[in-house]
Amino acid sequence: MEFSKEELDFFLSKYQEFLKIPSISATGEGIRNASSWLKEFMEELGIKTEIVETKGHPVVYGKVNNGGSKTLLVYNHYDVQPVDPINEWKYPPFSATISDGYIFARGASDNKGTLIARLLAFSKYKGKLNFNFVFEGEEEIGSIHLNEFIQSRKEELSKSSAVIMEGAGLDTKGRPMIVLGVKGLVYVQITVRVGERDVHSSVAPLIKNPVWELIKILNTIYDGEKVKIEGFYEDIEPLSKEVEELLDKIELDVEEYRKSLGVYSFNYKDRKEVVKALYTYPSCNIDGIFAGYIGQGSKTIVPSYAMAKMDFRLVPKQDPEKIYRELEKIVKAMGGEIVEMGLEKPVRTSPNTAVVKAMISSAVKAYSKDPVILPNAAGTQPMGLFYDLGIKEIVSAIGVGTPSSNAHAPNENVKLENFYKAIEHSLYFYQEYESLG
Amino acid sequence: MEFSKEELDFFLSKYQEFLKIPSISATGEGIRNASSWLKEFMEELGIKTEIVETKGHPVVYGKVNNGGSKTLLVYNHYDVQPVDPINEWKYPPFSATISDGYIFARGASDNKGTLIARLLAFSKYKGKLNFNFVFEGEEEIGSIHLNEFIQSRKEELSKSSAVIMEGAGLDTKGRPMIVLGVKGLVYVQITVRVGERDVHSSVAPLIKNPVWELIKILNTIYDGEKVKIEGFYEDIEPLSKEVEELLDKIELDVEEYRKSLGVYSFNYKDRKEVVKALYTYPSCNIDGIFAGYIGQGSKTIVPSYAMAKMDFRLVPKQDPEKIYRELEKIVKAMGGEIVEMGLEKPVRTSPNTAVVKAMISSAVKAYSKDPVILPNAAGTQPMGLFYDLGIKEIVSAIGVGTPSSNAHAPNENVKLENFYKAIEHSLYFYQEYESLG
Repeated sequence: MEFSKEELDFFLSKYQEFLKIPSISATGEGIRNASSWLKEFMEELGIKTEIVETKGHPVVYGKVNNGGSKTLLVYNHYDVQPVDPINEWKYPPFSATISDGYIFARGASDNKGTLIARLLAFSKYKGKLNFNFVFEGEEEIGSIHLNEFIQSRKEELSKSSAVIMEGAGLDTKGRPMIVLGVKGLVYVQITVRVGERDVHSSVAPLIKNPVWELIKILNTIYDGEKVKIEGFYEDIEPLSKEVEELLDKIELDVEEYRKSLGVYSFNYKDRKEVVKALYTYPSCNIDGIFAGYIGQGSKTIVPSYAMAKMDFRLVPKQDPEKIYRELEKIVKAMGGEIVEMGLEKPVRTSPNTAVVKAMISSAVKAYSKDPVILPNAAGTQPMGLFYDLGIKEIVSAIGVGTPSSNAHAPNENVKLENFYKAIEHSLYFYQEYESLG
Repeated sequence: MEFSKEELDFFLSKYQEFLKIPSISATGEGIRNASSWLKEFMEELGIKTEIVETKGHPVVYGKVNNGGSKTLLVYNHYDVQPVDPINEWKYPPFSATISDGYIFARGASDNKGTLIARLLAFSKYKGKLNFNFVFEGEEEIGSIHLNEFIQSRKEELSKSSAVIMEGAGLDTKGRPMIVLGVKGLVYVQITVRVGERDVHSSVAPLIKNPVWELIKILNTIYDGEKVKIEGFYEDIEPLSKEVEELLDKIELDVEEYRKSLGVYSFNYKDRKEVVKALYTYPSCNIDGIFAGYIGQGSKTIVPSYAMAKMDFRLVPKQDPEKIYRELEKIVKAMGGEIVEMGLEKPVRTSPNTAVVKAMISSAVKAYSKDPVILPNAAGTQPMGLFYDLGIKEIVSAIGVGTPSSNAHAPNENVKLENFYKAIEHSLYFYQEYESLG
């Protein structure tokens, strides 16, 4: 497929327009502008679109009835991560600067690039497939109100025959990734308070330091190797033969991957071990921790409180609600406060489904390469919510990013060529999926 | 002792003159004017004075040889804290406004009032005691270059028979405080780095989280009850009978004190236990901790580094350098980085010394009240630097401030009566100390 110069210019102009609108769900910055812009653009493409309010940021929901028997639910998110640390960016994060064939912006890869590529492909699609476009504004803060939206449109949405989620992008060799599921998530914030204000540290012998108290709680949750929460590991589904086979096929240059992340060492050296850990091990991570004085030089205080943000990545069939309840018990029993900031179920879709078959054949067509198929993502998407509607064909595929796109980090970027390929892949997929079964 | 109206007017005019000169060490504002004014005034009083340059703000150093056998080293500082938040001041902080028997100014209590009171007392002193006046300009920024000065005048200074430090002031009941020492201090910053930048937390199974690594180090340093650093407790001097007796005499309303600090609970309930812990237990405190994302909402990252600031308060005869070396061993062996940000020796002067006896008797004479005697402060001053010169008689006493003087806060103030009393106390002390032993 060859797009004309005019088409490519149009695609890029829309991409840049979208990227220049901040949409940071953590702070709310720009969310309204971004959702309005999106609705307007979708309506220009002939999509019947509404901004559906939730208790948080709205969902932009579009419907197209082309008269076919199958309806594809296209899920993406228009919100982005915060931009800190801002001084590490080469270009302003909402400038959408193009340099040397790459576009730099927060959201370029995760997830505005993929979202807009799918819409641009739709603008060229002439078939009978129906569409439900669900573009949420809270993915980066745990899709807090997505289920509120899904439940309010349950009947329409549950008629979808398949779901394609936020794209999985390309691997280090430029091969398209097709991801059959997601890890689950438990995200919490834990706080310990010892007083109304910071006090001079000469009174340290008399009072509890909230950091030491927080560390006691963290030590009870994790020992540095294993999660110590009651029953954390007991529901994990053993790996099936199909999944083991998928893992065997995943190529990975461990050193190259490590370097691309900018981390000094990996816990595993062997490719198989790294792949297995990444896709099938649960994790217990501290995303942030804060207490007291963290500026230049020294200040001698006992802080009044200490706070940690934590995420647990879960694998099939771990239950986020059960794990959260156990966590809550531990934290409360030890005098801390806990706030639940996101619970998501792990999902894994069978390779023997129409959506997976169409995704594979369209990927080969667009990229002239065999795709990489993962049993599930290392990360999380709110797939579980669609799975709970009774939709069993859910994949995450078609994305503009690569492992060096710096999603969630400074200098997030996308190679423009990959952006155009994602449009092509989307269009082929719509055609192939319509024609199958 | 009765000062004449003329004398009191002179005392007050000099106090106000001094307070009207800003001398903020953190910014350097007015430091040169204040040190020049001080030198000039000291020379008017017949003190041979020089401004001794350091790599930071200068020390104003004055010497008097009255031909006696003993030399008193008088330590104070002419620098003050910044004035923020400026809008909370009732009067401009360098106006030295008098209202209702109180003088309001930054530095009125900490430490210009005490400094000038000691000089004014000297102006009335007729005895044979010799003096070394050491007035530094960096106390409020950690006495960074005080040791540079001390080492450069080591021979002269080490001939001092006793030191009186920055005054301890009066307690809530208006009783003069006599403090026989200080706790020591080790202040460090510990950092663990795992990569060049924060990465998405989906890779958590593959890499070390710097917060968990930092916690491992912190767990190795402290178990929540006891410091685990090799030899941390072994040098602690058992409490002497004399010190125990001093502790017995310290009055304290535990609940009132706890409420004044705004903390929810104390580790001890009993007055004796609280007093003992506050003045004679070492502590291991976390002043601040930071990693990753600490803003609103959630962000799923593995931070690239984690950092903690810690202070250890030490009691006689713990050795800050030895403890720092052990800390450094632990941190480096576990892959962390450590920065030393302050080492100060603990000091406790025996109550059976001329300086303490003279301080007590002169306090009773000036205030007609029994003084409150503490074996050492709960906090830290650079007393150890003088102790290292071989001077074994060091006390912190004679001060113009009270707990409501708002040192380091807006509306710093001193009751004029307490200013005059401090002059009287100083003069009596010079006389009593000369006459003893």
